[in-house]
Amino acid sequence: MIDIEKANETAVSRMMEARPILKTVATARDVIPGMRENLLLHAGPPITWERASGPMRGAIVGALIFEGKATDWESAEKLVTSGQIDLEPCHEHNSVGPMAGVTSASMKVYVVENVTHGNMAYSNLNEGYGKVLRYGAYSENVLKKLRWMNDTMGPVLAEALEMLDGIDVRALLAESLHMGDEGHNRNKAGSILFTTKLAPAIGKATNNRIVASTILRFLGENALSVLNPVMAACKAMADAGHGVEGSTVMTVMARNGTDLGIRVSGLGDQWFTGPVGQPDGLYFSGFTADDASGDIGDSTITETAGIGAFAMATAPAIVTFISGTPEMAVDTTMRMYEITVGEHKAFTIPVLGFRGTPVGVDIRKVVELGIRPQINTGIAHKDAGVGQVGAGLVLPPANVFEDALIAYAEKYLS
Amino acid sequence: MIDIEKANETAVSRMMEARPILKTVATARDVIPGMRENLLLHAGPPITWERASGPMRGAIVGALIFEGKATDWESAEKLVTSGQIDLEPCHEHNSVGPMAGVTSASMKVYVVENVTHGNMAYSNLNEGYGKVLRYGAYSENVLKKLRWMNDTMGPVLAEALEMLDGIDVRALLAESLHMGDEGHNRNKAGSILFTTKLAPAIGKATNNRIVASTILRFLGENALSVLNPVMAACKAMADAGHGVEGSTVMTVMARNGTDLGIRVSGLGDQWFTGPVGQPDGLYFSGFTADDASGDIGDSTITETAGIGAFAMATAPAIVTFISGTPEMAVDTTMRMYEITVGEHKAFTIPVLGFRGTPVGVDIRKVVELGIRPQINTGIAHKDAGVGQVGAGLVLPPANVFEDALIAYAEKYLS
Repeated sequence: MIDIEKANETAVSRMMEARPILKTVATARDVIPGMRENLLLHAGPPITWERASGPMRGAIVGALIFEGKATDWESAEKLVTSGQIDLEPCHEHNSVGPMAGVTSASMKVYVVENVTHGNMAYSNLNEGYGKVLRYGAYSENVLKKLRWMNDTMGPVLAEALEMLDGIDVRALLAESLHMGDEGHNRNKAGSILFTTKLAPAIGKATNNRIVASTILRFLGENALSVLNPVMAACKAMADAGHGVEGSTVMTVMARNGTDLGIRVSGLGDQWFTGPVGQPDGLYFSGFTADDASGDIGDSTITETAGIGAFAMATAPAIVTFISGTPEMAVDTTMRMYEITVGEHKAFTIPVLGFRGTPVGVDIRKVVELGIRPQINTGIAHKDAGVGQVGAGLVLPPANVFEDALIAYAEKYLS
Repeated sequence: MIDIEKANETAVSRMMEARPILKTVATARDVIPGMRENLLLHAGPPITWERASGPMRGAIVGALIFEGKATDWESAEKLVTSGQIDLEPCHEHNSVGPMAGVTSASMKVYVVENVTHGNMAYSNLNEGYGKVLRYGAYSENVLKKLRWMNDTMGPVLAEALEMLDGIDVRALLAESLHMGDEGHNRNKAGSILFTTKLAPAIGKATNNRIVASTILRFLGENALSVLNPVMAACKAMADAGHGVEGSTVMTVMARNGTDLGIRVSGLGDQWFTGPVGQPDGLYFSGFTADDASGDIGDSTITETAGIGAFAMATAPAIVTFISGTPEMAVDTTMRMYEITVGEHKAFTIPVLGFRGTPVGVDIRKVVELGIRPQINTGIAHKDAGVGQVGAGLVLPPANVFEDALIAYAEKYLS
């Protein structure tokens, strides 16, 4: 007889005990398990070129040009559709990437180690705002910035991080949640905490003052600069709770722009997928809901690990960005307590009397109560390369939880 | 017939319209009006050596050793008591300083200009934690750090600030209030915002990588590094509201460890003073209320300008530091609305639906309602040089508001 409650407690305890340390920056092919020259990692569950959204296709094209394998859209498309390039989810390689999340063998990635349990996680570097690969842009300027990040910033960050003996991302997040961040869509405090911690070491890691100054400005002026290490840290924490026999805790939730997929701790590596939702939120000037791509990105690993929309009560100022009211922010966190197993020991919410954030979505509760996990998200333009058009709230499709519960019943209860 | 309401509205509007820009760092004697070799500025209303508290005396001794005018406590005391050294309030020289606030002619100070109205304000540099002059410590290590700040960090900050064309402290504060700061006792977000803004320029302002790295660590690891520029900015804002004929708005509130003094917009430069309170709060390990000095410092210029305890609703995490509950933090802000004239246009509180912070204490309301302005404060040890022993809440003595109201009646209504 399976003790589901106990299995879930084990899964969530492991998530909370995980201590993710950002160790260094390295080249994807040297560190990501299974990375190879003809492989592109992407956000969300598995996807083909044929079913891929605009921003996903654009990012694939950009990554192939970046790798010198293609010169334009047509040659890139041909490579992928002819089967010379494989597409696989980041999540199947201990990795995560925001929005399209496309990561190729030559790209530099953050390397996070969960020093409690020893598992590793990886994420690419954040490009900042405007025309960027993760939104499917692939112009020469986009690639030029990627090359600067890869060849100039990456090695300096690697040396700075090693000099600092790593950065404890869980501690950084705990602090940033007390500074109005929720860790997914609002990372203002976390990004400057990150920059401030790195700054003394960056000055020492390069003897080129202009390079040091440019990196410090690039990190400090990008309110998302810490998002990618945070996502890798959340991946390391969530993975620590994966694979617990009998557990109904969700350990992955990710979107590729077409499908959203989840994985469940006790159900191995099977994906349960359904059509992505359309985020509801605030659009930047000149854009409307008609411009929006379907929900996209691995950044929902934050909600999976107990922050993001789950911690929205800590971030009342976020409503200026995603719509809603400060009360709604608190209500969202309160609602997430109903579908989660635990309250986080490391992440607390001052306005709720320092109560721990809701952590560990129990797919049984989602189905029973009809309450789906809330997601805070950026909204991509549906066409490749336009970029971010807004930010808002979105829900996963209900069927993924139902399908997972049926699979659970088949595996454990039949 | 004086229209008091209109006068108060003018005073508070001027406070809110003031835009304080941190321009540079300079030597006190070169910029502070009336600064001279035999003058020491200090926090709070006027004080003599005989009536000065332990930390105030220690800071006076330290400043005189720093200036090369004394070698030890005895020689310093002799200089002051014989009348060779003058003691005058910072506030009488457009200046403010935290805790003892002692500022001498050679010390480097932040230079803030209110670019709306043209008035200037100044504050010394923050020394960080531990044994520091502002808590009355004056050992060789304390002076060594002051010399490094003055000779090494000061010039680099000056060049960096000029390179950046200054920093808009009102904008920085508006942002940090959305990141869990209240701007007086919690300046975690503001200090890293400050560090992050300076970082790219610091790297360029010196060709010594070790110096740049040391300054970045010194600023980034000190959660109070922005307090002094914030205080100077609040002084510049409060001064903009001073001198409005007929106004009953408080424009100065400051403590020297023995007396608390206030000034009122329509009552010129007269001080109204009374005995300081004993802060009530949390003590660091090994200390109790018996160790506490009386309330000390000019940092109450923050409450005067509409932040600090007045904005405590934005900073629920502060209660881990000063005692109390997150509800108490909101209640404090709500209570301050009852004794203030306006709601700040630049400083808003997300959890209160982005309502402006209460700004401009009306001394009539304080007396009528018996509600005194709340102060968040650090607590100094009563003996010179021990340092900070805790943090908490304190109130000004009631008589200062009553005395000011009587003076107002005599001036305007007789």
